[in-house]
Amino acid sequence: MSEQIVYIGSKPIINYVTAILTSFNSNPKPDKVIVKARGRSISAAVDAVEVTRHRFLSDLKHEVTIGTEQMQGDEGGTRNVSTIEIALSISPEAKKPSGS
Amino acid sequence: MSEQIVYIGSKPIINYVTAILTSFNSNPKPDKVIVKARGRSISAAVDAVEVTRHRFLSDLKHEVTIGTEQMQGDEGGTRNVSTIEIALSISPEAKKPSGS
Repeated sequence: MSEQIVYIGSKPIINYVTAILTSFNSNPKPDKVIVKARGRSISAAVDAVEVTRHRFLSDLKHEVTIGTEQMQGDEGGTRNVSTIEIALSISPEAKKPSGS
Repeated sequence: MSEQIVYIGSKPIINYVTAILTSFNSNPKPDKVIVKARGRSISAAVDAVEVTRHRFLSDLKHEVTIGTEQMQGDEGGTRNVSTIEIALSISPEAKKPSGS
């Protein structure tokens, strides 16, 4: 199964929407596009997925996983940061042109 | 099935962790505690759930749903806002005291 990963940072949402669409249109076509974000960017990840779904790909399916990662702190210690992974796929019926 | 809802806003994360723990300990015991947030608070919702799970309730199960809501804008129009709902439940084995 082929996957492409889109990491969400602090750029405008539309940049990530474009990245998601580009990933789905790459060759060979990926089965899944995984949107990943940490900390404050988690909201932006949900925004990017929702905008993609409402404006461009209404057949988008998603599966959401949340978790925690340990990051190296500035002063040597570690700190916990929340993560989100949203696995996107296009339902198989939508991939085929209708009436074929 | 009984549910309790915890809405996430802009208070410190620990307040919502406390709210989740209090909800699970209310009488009658709810089957689920639903954590809801919109927009920028989505990251805080994930933080609250992750802190609850790592520090207090290691048997916590979660199911994440994302979506979009239309909100009334300041100037009469509507704008879309992303939402998250995290349904929390404690696995049945964890509820029973062991060895009984």
